[in-house]
Amino acid sequence: MKFEVVATDGQARRGRIRFARGDVATPAFMPVGTYGSVKGLTVGELETTGSQIILGNAFHLMLRPGMDIIRAHGGLHEFMHWQRPILTDSGGFQVWSLKSLRRLDRDGVSFRSPVNGDRVRLTPEGSIEIQHALDADISMVFDECTDYPVSEAEAAESMRLSLDWAARSRRAFLRLQQGAGEAALFGIVQGGMYPELRRESLAGLMNIGFEGYAVGGLSVGEPEAERLQVMDALKDALPADRPRYLMGVGTPRDLVLAVAAGMDMFDCVIPTRHARNGQLFTSRGTLNIRNAKYRDDVGPVDPECPCDLCQHYSLAYLRHLHDCKEILGARLATLHNLTFYHRLMAQMASAIAAGRFSEFAAGYLASAVHSRVAMS
Amino acid sequence: MKFEVVATDGQARRGRIRFARGDVATPAFMPVGTYGSVKGLTVGELETTGSQIILGNAFHLMLRPGMDIIRAHGGLHEFMHWQRPILTDSGGFQVWSLKSLRRLDRDGVSFRSPVNGDRVRLTPEGSIEIQHALDADISMVFDECTDYPVSEAEAAESMRLSLDWAARSRRAFLRLQQGAGEAALFGIVQGGMYPELRRESLAGLMNIGFEGYAVGGLSVGEPEAERLQVMDALKDALPADRPRYLMGVGTPRDLVLAVAAGMDMFDCVIPTRHARNGQLFTSRGTLNIRNAKYRDDVGPVDPECPCDLCQHYSLAYLRHLHDCKEILGARLATLHNLTFYHRLMAQMASAIAAGRFSEFAAGYLASAVHSRVAMS
Repeated sequence: MKFEVVATDGQARRGRIRFARGDVATPAFMPVGTYGSVKGLTVGELETTGSQIILGNAFHLMLRPGMDIIRAHGGLHEFMHWQRPILTDSGGFQVWSLKSLRRLDRDGVSFRSPVNGDRVRLTPEGSIEIQHALDADISMVFDECTDYPVSEAEAAESMRLSLDWAARSRRAFLRLQQGAGEAALFGIVQGGMYPELRRESLAGLMNIGFEGYAVGGLSVGEPEAERLQVMDALKDALPADRPRYLMGVGTPRDLVLAVAAGMDMFDCVIPTRHARNGQLFTSRGTLNIRNAKYRDDVGPVDPECPCDLCQHYSLAYLRHLHDCKEILGARLATLHNLTFYHRLMAQMASAIAAGRFSEFAAGYLASAVHSRVAMS
Repeated sequence: MKFEVVATDGQARRGRIRFARGDVATPAFMPVGTYGSVKGLTVGELETTGSQIILGNAFHLMLRPGMDIIRAHGGLHEFMHWQRPILTDSGGFQVWSLKSLRRLDRDGVSFRSPVNGDRVRLTPEGSIEIQHALDADISMVFDECTDYPVSEAEAAESMRLSLDWAARSRRAFLRLQQGAGEAALFGIVQGGMYPELRRESLAGLMNIGFEGYAVGGLSVGEPEAERLQVMDALKDALPADRPRYLMGVGTPRDLVLAVAAGMDMFDCVIPTRHARNGQLFTSRGTLNIRNAKYRDDVGPVDPECPCDLCQHYSLAYLRHLHDCKEILGARLATLHNLTFYHRLMAQMASAIAAGRFSEFAAGYLASAVHSRVAMS
């Protein structure tokens, strides 16, 4: 993996990550493929939306279908027929989400499989081994996520455990790579909403050394102002020559704010999950197809969008499919929302290259239609 | 609509139906698009499977989204973005399926909408008007289906009512067409499992005169032998220069038997519904992807099939998607089953052209792998 920044405008960066499996232009949004498919879409459709890299998940795939199956296929790319790069999450966040079903010790985490109740053990070494078997282009360190809200002392303890696990993840990664591969491992900055802890976490990770740095533990219920404060605390300390990945974020508005704060990569279930619930992102704001006013609207979802839904189908048709719970409705909406996200990324990249990102961001954030996203 | 028979072999016929919206090679299988989409697929995908004509449904579409919406789009083709021909069913079969929820009189049928409980009235004239508004390339007469089993007297009474409705359907159709359109109206032969009644029905329909003739009231639970007997009773009486449509049939085996009996067109939910349930038709017989033996099978569903599923994905991947209830699993399986059906049709057409249909049919029916289809 090779990363270069090709343009900057304030903190905002336009860049390119080169992988053996293809290039990724940043800022980049990564659709989430939890179970070896981005829900509803074929890999060919993903490409038409502009997806350059997608997210896989060590936790979910180790439980279903199990690593023996994916190994037998030669990795996740072959299993799901996606030939472009894949970033895999380590499972840290999913294990943390299990709450009372997990038991944490210094060595790792034990939990009950939510699929079949089996006892499962996950450690930094185990997670890296799984991600290696998935043949991830970018692996993530196995970390502990910090609850929100939480005291500074607890956040510090959790962050330091994550640092220890990051060092173990790195050693396991290098052992498995044996200098041969082009794969990358990213560290994950933790430390809750405490700027000092965040900086300590980043310094510790940089001391270990990673191909990229992620900011974790956000999008866990905190107000926007706290999230921006964390990014602000890190912006001057994050190494300029490495990609920066803001995990689990977010709405179009969140992405504009994060790019303005110097972040390069993003993942989130919002565009895909909202699509299945009938919520669509458009150049005129978000709309919910269940709204009665779309019942007889023969116009497109978004006249400015080049996707199959907007080019060939009406709002009324989409609403009808949603009413009848037809699979095609979820598909077309997912195709549209991902197209919208990737086009937003491309618009930001153009604005950065043209030196007018701050105007773009100010205009976008001031526009009433993008100010809120109803969650469903 | 223009029909020509281009080759025959025994009773089996190879033909071509020409529509303003494109040609249909027969024997032809028509996928069912109940609610303005063939479940799970885009119209582009339908074309890749080899679909030349699809089925729409007056009954379902009048209830959802309602005819005002489809009229506002200019017809069903524009609403669902399918540019090839559409045959619409009249609603007769669906109203009959409502059983106790319907009330029949000589003029038509009253029933409660299964969607919202509204009182709805459907008559031959009303059905034809709906199909005209859908802009169907082939409309069907509004008929009464006959229960199975039923006495000869009841079958006769029902068939004669259907004949009266067929005459009314024809008059309504001609009034709406006013000689202008190229659309076609097909009559539907009824008469239960009684060969004499079937012949009386056909003679009555031919006396009215239609662009094509369908055989209805089959696939309602009767044994295969009774169905074949009905087709046998009609084979010499059906006009040779008109397309013959066997409604609601069937499995691959059923289709081979029906083509051997001289039928040209077919529709059935089996390939699409079975796909969603994980049941796939292959050159080696049917398989159910839920079978544990496919868990780690890295081979394709059918090595002889050109579809996206068989070319790019493993049995294990499809099983995994089915396990995880991922939409993509239903999609890929649907794509495959329709591809299988259309290829079977093309194989039969080739065999007819080469004068070796009887060998093809004998070989197909004798082969153990095609002898049974588990229903699910």
